[in-house]
Amino acid sequence: MATEILSDNDLDLIFRSARSYNGYLDRPVTRVQIEAIYDLLKMGPTSANVQPARFVFCLSQDSKEKLASVASEANAAKIRKAPAAVVVGMDMDFPERMPEVFPHNPDAKHWFSGAMLETTAFRNSSLQGAYFIVAARAIGLDVGPMSGFDNARADETFFAGTSIKSNFIATFGYGDPESIFGRLPRLGFDAACKII
Amino acid sequence: MATEILSDNDLDLIFRSARSYNGYLDRPVTRVQIEAIYDLLKMGPTSANVQPARFVFCLSQDSKEKLASVASEANAAKIRKAPAAVVVGMDMDFPERMPEVFPHNPDAKHWFSGAMLETTAFRNSSLQGAYFIVAARAIGLDVGPMSGFDNARADETFFAGTSIKSNFIATFGYGDPESIFGRLPRLGFDAACKII
Repeated sequence: MATEILSDNDLDLIFRSARSYNGYLDRPVTRVQIEAIYDLLKMGPTSANVQPARFVFCLSQDSKEKLASVASEANAAKIRKAPAAVVVGMDMDFPERMPEVFPHNPDAKHWFSGAMLETTAFRNSSLQGAYFIVAARAIGLDVGPMSGFDNARADETFFAGTSIKSNFIATFGYGDPESIFGRLPRLGFDAACKII
Repeated sequence: MATEILSDNDLDLIFRSARSYNGYLDRPVTRVQIEAIYDLLKMGPTSANVQPARFVFCLSQDSKEKLASVASEANAAKIRKAPAAVVVGMDMDFPERMPEVFPHNPDAKHWFSGAMLETTAFRNSSLQGAYFIVAARAIGLDVGPMSGFDNARADETFFAGTSIKSNFIATFGYGDPESIFGRLPRLGFDAACKII
């Protein structure tokens, strides 16, 4: 049971002042930071604890070049110059892990098939991708999520011979305030919500 | 540019101590809280600012009964007893809103069609669903996300005559610690991540 609320400062950090950055300061992202991000994001909820997301973190220039080569031109330039990037993937064989992540019910492995398996992988790896964004911001980094890339070529480049497919990608690092424009409008409550 | 990190307490609140609740204390959720949650979650990033998610918040017993009637038996019981529930939907006509949410490029409305439109709606409404979960936790509430319901019947019940489809649902309120079991295992870093 939660008995407290986030401070105003922390709400700003993860939601209100956070922005999607196009460029970053010349300051590296470390393996320790990436492990800290995963340690947070992994705690976010997924349906029956399926955790289908798989993350390939690109820190080397070579790996960023590979990712840039499957991205749209505008995104490729951002990826090459970012200190770090990530491919958020989804393991379509996630049911194989159910004995490990849902150990109290040996049937769970057989709950998923066909369109429902694909929907579960996509929805839940997207949730986990959002947890990645929030977790990175929570430890003081900034993120630039992108879907402008060739998923099939990304799959060949990063996931050949596996059951993993790409979902979306992102750059991350310490955002350069000069790389962003004014914030785009958000839908008002009445346009997006109803209380019944 | 983010220059700070979340406090340990706040990391606990949104990730590390947070849990998916099956039951809630007898304490209401208010419209003001729901508006506060939306004001936070709407700031989360979506591809080209598309914001496809639409939220139907069920506060009345009648609306919770309606949602329970399209849910699996186990989930129906939880929904009936929860102070609040939400249907996270996605507007398949989201491109119509592009002139409002991406005003600097009049072409944006024509970027989306076919499978790519569906993928964009599903991925981004899922991201926004995750922002809902984090935002609710951030203001001290607890959430019980669920995908065990009949999407087609939910669409008929809540979105008939509109371009909105259901994605997932959740209960929320002040979690009852007696309603949860031990935390399920999370995949280790090496099972889910690679750094290249």
